[in-house]
Amino acid sequence: MNSATSATDPTTQEKTMNAVVLERRHEIRIRPVPGPGRVGPDEVRIGVHTVGICGSDVHYYTHGRIGPYVVEDPMVLGHEASGTVLEVGADVTHLAVGDRVCMEPGIPDPRSRASRLGIYNVDPDVRFWATPPVHGCLRPEIVHPADFTYKLPDRLSLEEGALIEPFAVAVHAVTKARISPGDVVAVVGAGTIGVLTAIAATASGASRVYVSDVAPEKFAKLRAYPTIHPVDAGEQDLAEVVREATEGWGADVVFEASGNPRAFGSLWEAPAPGGAVVLVGIPVSPVSLDVAAAQARELRIETVFRYANAYPRAIELAASPAVDLGALISATYPFEEAVTAFERGAEARPTDTKIQIRVAGA
Amino acid sequence: MNSATSATDPTTQEKTMNAVVLERRHEIRIRPVPGPGRVGPDEVRIGVHTVGICGSDVHYYTHGRIGPYVVEDPMVLGHEASGTVLEVGADVTHLAVGDRVCMEPGIPDPRSRASRLGIYNVDPDVRFWATPPVHGCLRPEIVHPADFTYKLPDRLSLEEGALIEPFAVAVHAVTKARISPGDVVAVVGAGTIGVLTAIAATASGASRVYVSDVAPEKFAKLRAYPTIHPVDAGEQDLAEVVREATEGWGADVVFEASGNPRAFGSLWEAPAPGGAVVLVGIPVSPVSLDVAAAQARELRIETVFRYANAYPRAIELAASPAVDLGALISATYPFEEAVTAFERGAEARPTDTKIQIRVAGA
Amino acid sequence: MNSATSATDPTTQEKTMNAVVLERRHEIRIRPVPGPGRVGPDEVRIGVHTVGICGSDVHYYTHGRIGPYVVEDPMVLGHEASGTVLEVGADVTHLAVGDRVCMEPGIPDPRSRASRLGIYNVDPDVRFWATPPVHGCLRPEIVHPADFTYKLPDRLSLEEGALIEPFAVAVHAVTKARISPGDVVAVVGAGTIGVLTAIAATASGASRVYVSDVAPEKFAKLRAYPTIHPVDAGEQDLAEVVREATEGWGADVVFEASGNPRAFGSLWEAPAPGGAVVLVGIPVSPVSLDVAAAQARELRIETVFRYANAYPRAIELAASPAVDLGALISATYPFEEAVTAFERGAEARPTDTKIQIRVAGA
Amino acid sequence: MNSATSATDPTTQEKTMNAVVLERRHEIRIRPVPGPGRVGPDEVRIGVHTVGICGSDVHYYTHGRIGPYVVEDPMVLGHEASGTVLEVGADVTHLAVGDRVCMEPGIPDPRSRASRLGIYNVDPDVRFWATPPVHGCLRPEIVHPADFTYKLPDRLSLEEGALIEPFAVAVHAVTKARISPGDVVAVVGAGTIGVLTAIAATASGASRVYVSDVAPEKFAKLRAYPTIHPVDAGEQDLAEVVREATEGWGADVVFEASGNPRAFGSLWEAPAPGGAVVLVGIPVSPVSLDVAAAQARELRIETVFRYANAYPRAIELAASPAVDLGALISATYPFEEAVTAFERGAEARPTDTKIQIRVAGA
Repeated sequence: MNSATSATDPTTQEKTMNAVVLERRHEIRIRPVPGPGRVGPDEVRIGVHTVGICGSDVHYYTHGRIGPYVVEDPMVLGHEASGTVLEVGADVTHLAVGDRVCMEPGIPDPRSRASRLGIYNVDPDVRFWATPPVHGCLRPEIVHPADFTYKLPDRLSLEEGALIEPFAVAVHAVTKARISPGDVVAVVGAGTIGVLTAIAATASGASRVYVSDVAPEKFAKLRAYPTIHPVDAGEQDLAEVVREATEGWGADVVFEASGNPRAFGSLWEAPAPGGAVVLVGIPVSPVSLDVAAAQARELRIETVFRYANAYPRAIELAASPAVDLGALISATYPFEEAVTAFERGAEARPTDTKIQIRVAGA
Repeated sequence: MNSATSATDPTTQEKTMNAVVLERRHEIRIRPVPGPGRVGPDEVRIGVHTVGICGSDVHYYTHGRIGPYVVEDPMVLGHEASGTVLEVGADVTHLAVGDRVCMEPGIPDPRSRASRLGIYNVDPDVRFWATPPVHGCLRPEIVHPADFTYKLPDRLSLEEGALIEPFAVAVHAVTKARISPGDVVAVVGAGTIGVLTAIAATASGASRVYVSDVAPEKFAKLRAYPTIHPVDAGEQDLAEVVREATEGWGADVVFEASGNPRAFGSLWEAPAPGGAVVLVGIPVSPVSLDVAAAQARELRIETVFRYANAYPRAIELAASPAVDLGALISATYPFEEAVTAFERGAEARPTDTKIQIRVAGA
Repeated sequence: MNSATSATDPTTQEKTMNAVVLERRHEIRIRPVPGPGRVGPDEVRIGVHTVGICGSDVHYYTHGRIGPYVVEDPMVLGHEASGTVLEVGADVTHLAVGDRVCMEPGIPDPRSRASRLGIYNVDPDVRFWATPPVHGCLRPEIVHPADFTYKLPDRLSLEEGALIEPFAVAVHAVTKARISPGDVVAVVGAGTIGVLTAIAATASGASRVYVSDVAPEKFAKLRAYPTIHPVDAGEQDLAEVVREATEGWGADVVFEASGNPRAFGSLWEAPAPGGAVVLVGIPVSPVSLDVAAAQARELRIETVFRYANAYPRAIELAASPAVDLGALISATYPFEEAVTAFERGAEARPTDTKIQIRVAGA
Repeated sequence: MNSATSATDPTTQEKTMNAVVLERRHEIRIRPVPGPGRVGPDEVRIGVHTVGICGSDVHYYTHGRIGPYVVEDPMVLGHEASGTVLEVGADVTHLAVGDRVCMEPGIPDPRSRASRLGIYNVDPDVRFWATPPVHGCLRPEIVHPADFTYKLPDRLSLEEGALIEPFAVAVHAVTKARISPGDVVAVVGAGTIGVLTAIAATASGASRVYVSDVAPEKFAKLRAYPTIHPVDAGEQDLAEVVREATEGWGADVVFEASGNPRAFGSLWEAPAPGGAVVLVGIPVSPVSLDVAAAQARELRIETVFRYANAYPRAIELAASPAVDLGALISATYPFEEAVTAFERGAEARPTDTKIQIRVAGA
């Protein structure tokens, strides 16, 4: 039997399906879980096609927690997903059976104060896939609110569709940066989010983007973008490179996408007077902020948390010729090899940008 | 003798130079005018290479005035210029003899209230080339403040350098629009400014740009940009096209670049709720504003006047692979044929995007 | 029997209540209508205390329509209301029986695209009290979503509570204006909204506010505010007054609160370079926009439509010592005299700022 | 002889004047220094009336340096000044002899890149009074650029005029905060800048301002402002107080005005989701930034450095009835007792908000 197909629980007669379950720290299993249940009037049932592995999935696997979120019960992993609509609820008008879609994994309370202000990502009651105690989407079928399910344009493959989630983080970060046309940009860190941020910034008006990392292998994925310039952090200081390239002025916007506390020591030297620093990476502990240095240039510091209203933008941009998400996929594993995929994710090879799991037709 | 070279006035012994002079409405002559004089400590002397013909130059030629600006005395035409530095003032540090440059044609009082606020374009005391009574740059040499003279990157030709001026208008308009990544944009009018605005918007994060004009020939120059979609205004209504392409939502930003008062009747129907309309074209008379329609979507309306702090951005963007200004040059005339060039400009052929005059080495 | 109390329909045995009903143009009656029905889990039942008469209520009375909104069936009037909570739904946590409250009259679809963006006021599906075909609140009891019901601080009376609705329009306009501390402001029109806008601007950092109107009687209500300066539009030109008071610079922000198309002719002369014009009044027909004049100062034009997320702000500000809404109440009528109240509203006396109807205990 | 009057140097025949000179760390003397020299065409000569003592003046006195700025040569102290115009340069039009004025102490290069962008405060070439090696204004006469000299309105005394400088810091901070009408605000620290920031925020639309300090004596000066609420940091946690006062939501804007590194530990808990933190105080060493906590609410962090374009706003606001700067003056010393004044400043009594020195007529 194909491990991603569904069955029926002999006890309850309820449909079950195999899912990728983090039983506890260090232990992932593919085993049956209850099916997604009935489709409500505002929901759709989706056959999951591809799910990307995110650093947070791996972190739950290797550490069992991320800050205050602790895996106390078995949890289905995965939140970067695309798929095909199998069934639509009675009140859904913008989707039809057969539509290729991607899904926004965080569902806020639409009536919360934050939601009403348009910043639903900071609604404390958001339910986000694969964030304890909410199950993720590494299973054959899910039921999801239609409002948070987006049709993919023809130009985008389902594999690219599963990359919209991390790309939405980058697009949201670039939106909050308020890049002006022709800005010079710096990005600290060339992991998945750093690479996606560099690409999103380039597609959004940045004329030149300087990306630094200690692992130069990571720059390979950026070679197709002539205005993105790699900076080997083992050899060169990003702030110095940027100043030299701007006659001493500095970068209009600097994105911190490494989450590495050590990156913050010199972070405040790279931006131009009146420039911005956008904090995308999530350091595990408080970092050093040189207030006086930041004040001397009157920097604006923006922090970003996931995204709000970014999926439509991310899809539009991903479908434009300026962006090629597909090139960032380093490996694709069949559903049955999900554990292997996670083990490879845990290796954190510098040459891996995105590892995906093919769920459908596995 | 080459008509663009210099001579010496036999009476005053002062250097004179041939220039393209609008003697009065309908009469342009190439004839000697006084040379540019000495280079001050903060100035540079520039050998003019290329000057583009702007609609305003043509308007002074055909009408003798633009609004309150009336040609009362002979005036040298031209304000879209590039050239080569021939001499640098004592205090100039960022330029050297031989540098290829383009020049910002409006010089504000740096100590005015507007300048101090960073909006020097609306300083009422700006002195702008070829705006009466200030002479323009259609002559072999000019002396210009070094602060408003910008070095061209290697990637840009001097012909493209002379296109930075109108491109700066577009970049400034796009900057004021505050385009967010993935925005859907509409542009009314595919004249030079409309085309440049569409290109600048595309390079600044717009995912799709719909450009309308009654003269479909004008769309030819946009074919190289796959995300710019022409809308033949004789056949289709821009607002309808945009709504259809956005599931009824509308464009995030609409640029009015035609200056045609009739375009304003339906202008307020194209933007999305919360969207923006940016008024770039300059209608010769007041237009109709449907306040209630604009309010129903709570539109923001931005007006633009030339540009401020836009040259560095425009040069950066023009040098990026996303933009090809050179392709917009429809014809280049030698200096001696400047009158012919202006006559062609006055024809306003729909297939002409930009006509330039080669001054140097003519 | 008190005309504002409830009864039981002898036919259906359903509770009925007297309401102020616009039967058709020019005809208002107090007569029984069905009661508000059961309280849902997220709703509250409110005993209406005070309802202010808005210009739009009067307009429906005198014209039978406002633009596309036509009174085709009898409609209960009123949308500026305060009251006391009589019953709370099962899921309501922030309100209790006995709470003094005011109610936001427009209920959007919380899942619409506009709502998700935080601009729920431009959701086309908003249901707004006393906007055909939605009934208003001029009746003894209503059932309302708890999310759009706001507790009044002790400092505010129920009469002031019924003024929060028009004050929210002013606060929203001032929020969109983005007034900076010390700004000089001009307001065209000293009707209710003009007066409220002047007060809101003053409380929000405007150092001086110049308010113009052709009816100087209207300025009486502003005498308590020493930094609000009346300009008799019959004697003086607002733009001239403002320029003179600012050494020729102009107002940082100009609010158009008259809705009078004639006001737009000279509107574009009052703002400073880089300033803003905020369009609050709703002209019945398109107006004249002098694009070139607006561009010469690079004005930003904001349009406002009701409000979003403004009630909490309006309540906070109304409760501060800088604002005295109570002083704006010109007359209060008992419920039984509602028709008289509307007739007086239709008179549009220049000395009337706000007329209210006392519903409860009438 | 009055110590603040002028004399003539017997050797050079040049006019000398007594000034308050920091000879070196811990040593201030009143002794002759050269006069201010001739008035240039764009300058004015001013008879200094009152100079406030700033924390930075005291810091140079007690430490001999502030960060990179080291007192290596004797330096005239003082930069918070008002006075009377004694002479105007040939090109000055907005000032006349006898005008009561205050002076902006930092003079940028008007042609620098930062100045052209409107952010002249971050021009690295700013020359700022009493910042080594630039002399300050604690002397009877100074010559100053007319552009940076502002006429005081009748409502403001010369003593209040000398408070415009620190008030401009507060007004600039509030401007960058982008306070919206009705915002709830928190201020950490009730020193001079904290108190001024609380007042500026109140006058700029904040409905409630919570100010915390460990020295409750400092709150005395705020008693006149009913919407400013003191929080004794020894007894209560500001973040807790604010959350309780906002139903758990938090402050819309938090100003850090203490400069105390320990204040940063809990700083990130006080703001609301989507709120802002404005860093006004200058900690002597890098502080702790809890990035994850800031991201969870997607905070915007603004840093401020002195001010740009804030003097006109500060003067406007100071002259409005909402603000009473005069009440903040704790003591005034005659010029001859300047050393005593500085010694008292060094005591840092919690009851001292502002100490001033009367220069003129001393």
